[in-house]
Amino acid sequence: MATSNPSVCLYGPGNAKIEDRPEPEITEPTDAIVRIKFVGVCGSDVHFWNHGGVNGNYVSASHPLVMGHEASGTIHAVGSAVSHLRPGDNVAIEPGRPCRSCSRCKEGLYNLCPDMKFAACPPDTSGCLSKYFKIPADFCYKLPPGISLQEGVLAEPLAVAAHAVRMIRVRPGQTVVIFGSGTIGLLCGAVARLFGAKRIIAVDLLDEKLDFARDFNRASTFRPDLDATAEEDAARLIRENGLGLGADAVIEATGAESSIAMAVYVLRPGGSCVQTGLGKPVVNFPILTMSEKELHMHGAFRYNTGDFGVAMDVLEAGTIPLKSLISNIFDFEHAADAWEATKQGRGIKNMIRGYGYKDPARMMHL
Amino acid sequence: MATSNPSVCLYGPGNAKIEDRPEPEITEPTDAIVRIKFVGVCGSDVHFWNHGGVNGNYVSASHPLVMGHEASGTIHAVGSAVSHLRPGDNVAIEPGRPCRSCSRCKEGLYNLCPDMKFAACPPDTSGCLSKYFKIPADFCYKLPPGISLQEGVLAEPLAVAAHAVRMIRVRPGQTVVIFGSGTIGLLCGAVARLFGAKRIIAVDLLDEKLDFARDFNRASTFRPDLDATAEEDAARLIRENGLGLGADAVIEATGAESSIAMAVYVLRPGGSCVQTGLGKPVVNFPILTMSEKELHMHGAFRYNTGDFGVAMDVLEAGTIPLKSLISNIFDFEHAADAWEATKQGRGIKNMIRGYGYKDPARMMHL
Amino acid sequence: MATSNPSVCLYGPGNAKIEDRPEPEITEPTDAIVRIKFVGVCGSDVHFWNHGGVNGNYVSASHPLVMGHEASGTIHAVGSAVSHLRPGDNVAIEPGRPCRSCSRCKEGLYNLCPDMKFAACPPDTSGCLSKYFKIPADFCYKLPPGISLQEGVLAEPLAVAAHAVRMIRVRPGQTVVIFGSGTIGLLCGAVARLFGAKRIIAVDLLDEKLDFARDFNRASTFRPDLDATAEEDAARLIRENGLGLGADAVIEATGAESSIAMAVYVLRPGGSCVQTGLGKPVVNFPILTMSEKELHMHGAFRYNTGDFGVAMDVLEAGTIPLKSLISNIFDFEHAADAWEATKQGRGIKNMIRGYGYKDPARMMHL
Amino acid sequence: MATSNPSVCLYGPGNAKIEDRPEPEITEPTDAIVRIKFVGVCGSDVHFWNHGGVNGNYVSASHPLVMGHEASGTIHAVGSAVSHLRPGDNVAIEPGRPCRSCSRCKEGLYNLCPDMKFAACPPDTSGCLSKYFKIPADFCYKLPPGISLQEGVLAEPLAVAAHAVRMIRVRPGQTVVIFGSGTIGLLCGAVARLFGAKRIIAVDLLDEKLDFARDFNRASTFRPDLDATAEEDAARLIRENGLGLGADAVIEATGAESSIAMAVYVLRPGGSCVQTGLGKPVVNFPILTMSEKELHMHGAFRYNTGDFGVAMDVLEAGTIPLKSLISNIFDFEHAADAWEATKQGRGIKNMIRGYGYKDPARMMHL
Repeated sequence: MATSNPSVCLYGPGNAKIEDRPEPEITEPTDAIVRIKFVGVCGSDVHFWNHGGVNGNYVSASHPLVMGHEASGTIHAVGSAVSHLRPGDNVAIEPGRPCRSCSRCKEGLYNLCPDMKFAACPPDTSGCLSKYFKIPADFCYKLPPGISLQEGVLAEPLAVAAHAVRMIRVRPGQTVVIFGSGTIGLLCGAVARLFGAKRIIAVDLLDEKLDFARDFNRASTFRPDLDATAEEDAARLIRENGLGLGADAVIEATGAESSIAMAVYVLRPGGSCVQTGLGKPVVNFPILTMSEKELHMHGAFRYNTGDFGVAMDVLEAGTIPLKSLISNIFDFEHAADAWEATKQGRGIKNMIRGYGYKDPARMMHL
Repeated sequence: MATSNPSVCLYGPGNAKIEDRPEPEITEPTDAIVRIKFVGVCGSDVHFWNHGGVNGNYVSASHPLVMGHEASGTIHAVGSAVSHLRPGDNVAIEPGRPCRSCSRCKEGLYNLCPDMKFAACPPDTSGCLSKYFKIPADFCYKLPPGISLQEGVLAEPLAVAAHAVRMIRVRPGQTVVIFGSGTIGLLCGAVARLFGAKRIIAVDLLDEKLDFARDFNRASTFRPDLDATAEEDAARLIRENGLGLGADAVIEATGAESSIAMAVYVLRPGGSCVQTGLGKPVVNFPILTMSEKELHMHGAFRYNTGDFGVAMDVLEAGTIPLKSLISNIFDFEHAADAWEATKQGRGIKNMIRGYGYKDPARMMHL
Repeated sequence: MATSNPSVCLYGPGNAKIEDRPEPEITEPTDAIVRIKFVGVCGSDVHFWNHGGVNGNYVSASHPLVMGHEASGTIHAVGSAVSHLRPGDNVAIEPGRPCRSCSRCKEGLYNLCPDMKFAACPPDTSGCLSKYFKIPADFCYKLPPGISLQEGVLAEPLAVAAHAVRMIRVRPGQTVVIFGSGTIGLLCGAVARLFGAKRIIAVDLLDEKLDFARDFNRASTFRPDLDATAEEDAARLIRENGLGLGADAVIEATGAESSIAMAVYVLRPGGSCVQTGLGKPVVNFPILTMSEKELHMHGAFRYNTGDFGVAMDVLEAGTIPLKSLISNIFDFEHAADAWEATKQGRGIKNMIRGYGYKDPARMMHL
Repeated sequence: MATSNPSVCLYGPGNAKIEDRPEPEITEPTDAIVRIKFVGVCGSDVHFWNHGGVNGNYVSASHPLVMGHEASGTIHAVGSAVSHLRPGDNVAIEPGRPCRSCSRCKEGLYNLCPDMKFAACPPDTSGCLSKYFKIPADFCYKLPPGISLQEGVLAEPLAVAAHAVRMIRVRPGQTVVIFGSGTIGLLCGAVARLFGAKRIIAVDLLDEKLDFARDFNRASTFRPDLDATAEEDAARLIRENGLGLGADAVIEATGAESSIAMAVYVLRPGGSCVQTGLGKPVVNFPILTMSEKELHMHGAFRYNTGDFGVAMDVLEAGTIPLKSLISNIFDFEHAADAWEATKQGRGIKNMIRGYGYKDPARMMHL
C-alpha cells in the first residue's frame, strides 16, 4: 500500500480498517502537522469499538471515523507564524479545535464551545490514529527534556485530571478522597499532589487497584463494603482516617451511583466534589445532605485553558512514577487488539504505535 | 400574669403555651438585649408546629422550645463595649450564635459551625417569641431610616436569599431562573436584581404566584406542564424565552424533585445552580447532564458573613415592593393562629406581634 | 472625490487629511464590515493629534494612521458563518483583534495579548474614521432596541469602565470613591451602580464636574483642598462622609500623583483600588500604607471578555442619563475640529459623524 | 528570685530587664496557657530594641513591654471547652487576639481587625518572652510528630510567608521571583514550592545569601547590578532566565525602593506582586507600567485564617531543610544578646530559650 496518510477507521461496532486519507497540509500560518508516534487507548475508544458511536452519533460506511485522541508525536511541519515549535520537536497533542469566538471560548472555557471539533468524536471524523495529524500549533505542547513520547501520551489524561483537580481548587492542607483507581483517578492523585494536597485517600473495590494507588500516589486506601449503605461506608472511611467532620474534597472518577452518594456523605460541611467519571444518566442523589452541608458539586468535561500546562508540569516534576501506568504497546496494524485488551481490563494505559513507527526502546511487547 | 419575659413555648405537635422565662441580662460587654416587636412565620415553624421537631430533635415536656427566629425589635440594653447601637434603636436580628473559633467560623462560613446555637432550633431552646431576646450586638442590624419594624422582619429571609444569590455569583447580564415563588424565591429575585441580574424568570405551578412574581421582580414567568418531562419543560422554557443554550444561573427554591431535574436541564453549559429549597432527602438526579454541561451545583444553608448586610441594602434601596409580602399580623397570644394560617397557605409572610406590643400602624388585622 | 472608503488619516501633529483607502472585503466567514455612523473622541485621540504618536510609535508620511477607535455603525456585510448579525443592524464596535491563541487570550485576558492589533494604535494603521471598517463579527455588539447610534459610541468607554469596575469586584453595600469626573470616571460610576454599589463619592477639582457627577450617578462629591496633603484630604473625605475606617473601593481615573496617593489613604484596610487613568510614568507612592492596610492595587488596560456585554447592559438598563454625556457632533470633514474642541475642554464626549452620514436627529450642532 | 512568671521587659532603647509578672490563669473555657520554650528574634524586635517603639507607640517606665512574638512551647493548662490540646503537647503560637466580631474578623481577615491585640506590640504590653503565656486555644497549633520545638518557632514566619504566597495565588507552572533572601524571602520560597511553583528565582545583593537560597529552595539566583536601572536589571533577569514577557509572580521581601521598581518591571502582563517587606513609607513607583501591563499589587500584613495551617503543613512535609535556618540560641537571661546578634547580621534565625528551659539537644551555643 503506497500511502500518504494511513489511518485507522471505524466503520461500526468491531469493524475497523486501515485506510489511506489525504495527507494534511499547512493552510493557516498557525497550523502544525504532527507525525504521530503513540496513541493511548481510553475508555471512550472501547465504547466506540463496542457500540460504533455515542449519543445518537454513530459511524457508518458513509461516516467512518478515524479513531484516537490521546497522542504524542514529532513535529513534521509548522506554519509561518509558528515560532515556539520546529520540525523534529516531540510534542503532546491537545486534540480539540474550539471556535475561539463564542462567549465560552472567550472566557477560557473552550471545552464548552458549542462548535468544538474534537478528534475522534462525531460529527468530526478525524482522529489521531493517522500517520499525520494537523492541529493549531498552540495545541501542541513540547515535551520537557527527558520525557519520552510514551509518557507524552499521558498528557491528555493528565489534562483531564488537572481540569478536575483545579475545578475544586485543591490546596495545601487538604484531604482529598478519590473514588476510582483507574487511569483518571490515579492521575487526579498525581495532580492533587502537585497542588499540595496533604492526604489522598483512594477508594476502589479491587485490592490490586488500591495497592497500585498506594504506591503511585502515597495514598491511603479504602475498600467499600458492598453490604453497607453509602452512608455507612462514608462514616467508616471518616472514622478510620480520623477525618473529623469529613473530607475537604472529593474526586468522583467512577460514575457509579453508590460512589456518588458516598462522595456526598464523606465530605465535610462546605466541601467540594468534582464529578469526572461518567455512568448512568440519572442516579439517586442525596440532595438534602448537599444542602444541609452546603456542598459544592461540579461537573468536569475534558479540559480547557491551562490544563495541558499543568499536565506538562506533572510530567516534568518527575515526582510520580508515571511510567508505571504504561502497560502494553501495540503496533498500528493491531489497534483493535489494544481496544480489546483494554476492554478486558488487561493493563492500565495501553498504547498504539503510530504508523510505521519503530520505537527504539520497545520496552514492552505483546 | 405578672411576668418578666413571657415566651411562646412549644411542648409538642399542636401544643404551645405562653410561659414566663427568665429575663436575659447583659453578661458580656458585647451583648445586646432586644425588646422583640415582630416575629415572622417561616415554613420551618409550621414543620415544628406539625411535628414537634426535626431530624430526631423533638420538643417535650422536659425540653420545650421557645419558637421564632425571624424577628425585629428595639434595643433594650447593650453591653459596655457596644458602640454602634443604643437603647431605642430599631434592629433586625440574626438569630444564631456561632463559636467564632473553629475553622469554618474563621473562614467566615459560620453557618457551617458545628457548635452553632440557632434560635428555636433544638438542642438550643431559646427563640425570638419572647418579650426580650439576648444576642451578641454584632448580630443586631440597625434598620435604615424609613424602614419599619415589620419590614425589618424580612431581613432574615432576605439574608437567606442573599446567601443563595451570592453562592452563584449573580452578576449583570445574567438570566436567572428561579424555581418557586414563595417568600424565598421572591426575595432571591429581589437580591438578584440588586446584584445586577438582567432577566429573572419565575417558575411556579400556580398562576397567582406567577402573577405576584411578575410584579414583584419584573420577572418573566413559566408554568411547567405536569404532563411533560422535566427535560421537555426545560426545553420549552429555553425556547419561549430565547435563552439559546440555556440560563446562566438557577435558584432552586422548592426542593421538588421535578424542579431540581428541570434546573439541571435549563442551565447553559458552565451554568450554576443553588439549592435553597429543602424537600425529599434523596431524588432522581440527572448527573450525566451535570457532567457533560460542566454545571456547578451548590447547597445553601442559612446565611453567613455579609448576608445580613446585603439584606439591609435591599431594604434600604427601596426598589422592590417588599411591603407587599407582609400578609397577616397576629397578636403574641395568637401565635398558633399565625402558624395555622401559614400552614393553610393564607398569605405570603405572616407575622406575630411581640409581647405587649401595640404597633401604631396596625395596618393589617385578622 | 469619487471614493470607496474615505478615511481621516493623521500624518503628524496637527496634520490630518481625508484620503481614500481600499474598501474592506469579507475574507473570513466570521468577518463583518460596518458602515461607520459615529466616532467618539477620546483623550488619546487628542494626544495623537498633539504629538503624532505615543511611546516611540509615531505617524509619518510613510506611516499615516487612520484615526478613531470609539465607533458605532450599521452592518454592511457579514461572512457566511455569521448568524447573530445581518446587514442593517445597528452595532457598537470593539476595536481590537487579539491573536486568540496565546496564553493570555486563552485565559480571556486578550487585552494583554502581545499580538493585539488595535484600531488607530500604531503599528496598526487602520482606524474607525473610515466609511467602512472590517472587524470579526464577534466584536460587533448589536444595540438594544431604543438605543441610538450616538449612544452606541459610548459602549467603548463604558467597556473601559466595566473593566475597571470588575477588576475590583464592586458589589452591593460598598462605598466607591471615584477620582476624576471625566467621561471614564462618570461611566465607572454608572457601571458601579449596575453592580450594586451603595454609595459613590466623586472627587474632582472642578465644581462643575462635581455637579455633573452628582446628577449623573447620584454621587456624593468631594473637592480636595490643594493646600492640604493627600493624607489630610483623605482624612477629611472619610470624616465628611462617615466612612469609618475608609472606603471599600477606589477607582482612580485621573492619573494624577496626588490622587493616587489620596486613593491609598482613603481606602479601608483590605480595600481595593483600580488605576485606570494614565499620567506620569513614575509617582511618589505611599507603599508602606499599602502594606500595613493590606490594600490591593490593580492596573486596568482597555477591556476584555465580557466588558462590552456589561456596557450593552448599562445602555439597555436605561437607569443612567447617558445621553447627557454627548456634547458636540462634528461632520466627518471636520474631525480635527472635534479633536480641538476636546483639547480645549469643550464638552464631555464629542463625536464625529461617519463619512456621508446624515443623521436624522442632528440633535446637536456646532 | 522566687518567681511565678519571669518576663523580659523593654523599658526603652537598649534597656531591658527580667521582671516578674502575674502568672496567667484560665478565665475562659477556651483559653490555653503555654509554657514557652523558644522565642525567635525578628527584625521588628531589633527595631524595638533600637528605638523603643514604633509609629508613635513607645515603651517607657510606665509602659514597659514584654518582648517576643515568635514562640513555641508546651501546653501547661487548658480551659474546659478545649478538646484538641492537652497539657504536655508541643505547640506553635499564633500571637494575636482579634475581636472576632467586626466585619474583617467575620470575613476571615482578622489581621485587619482594628481591635487586634498582638503580642509585644503596643498598646498591648504582653509578649511571649515570659515563662507562661495565655492565648485562645484555637491559636495554638500542635506540632506534627518529629518536629522539634525549635522548628516550631518557624511556624510564625512561615505563616507570614504563607499569607504572602496565598495573596498572589501561586500555583503549578508559575515562575516566582522573590526579592530578598532573608528569613521571610526564604520561607516564601518554601511555601511557594508547597503550592506547586515551578521555578523560583531569588534576588539579593549578597552572594552568600543567594547561595543559601539556591540550596534551600532549589532556586535560580540573580544579583542586581547597582549601576544599572531597575528596568535594566529586570530586563537582564528576564533574559538570563528565559522568561519571555516576564515572571508570573513576585514576592517583594525587602521593602527597598529599587526592588519594588524592579518587581514591577520584571512581571509579565497580568502578573501579581505581593509586598511583604517594609521600608521607606513613600517610594518612587512606576505606576504607568503597572497600568499598561495590568499588574496586581497586594500589600500583606501578618497572617490570618489558614496561614498557620499552611505553616504546619510545610513543617510536616519535610521537603525543605528548615533546620538550616536556625542559627544561634541564647538563654532567656541573654535575650538582649540575641537582639544584638540579629542587629549585626549574625545568623539567619536566632532564638531565645524560654525561662528555665534546659533543652536536651542544645545543638547550638554561643
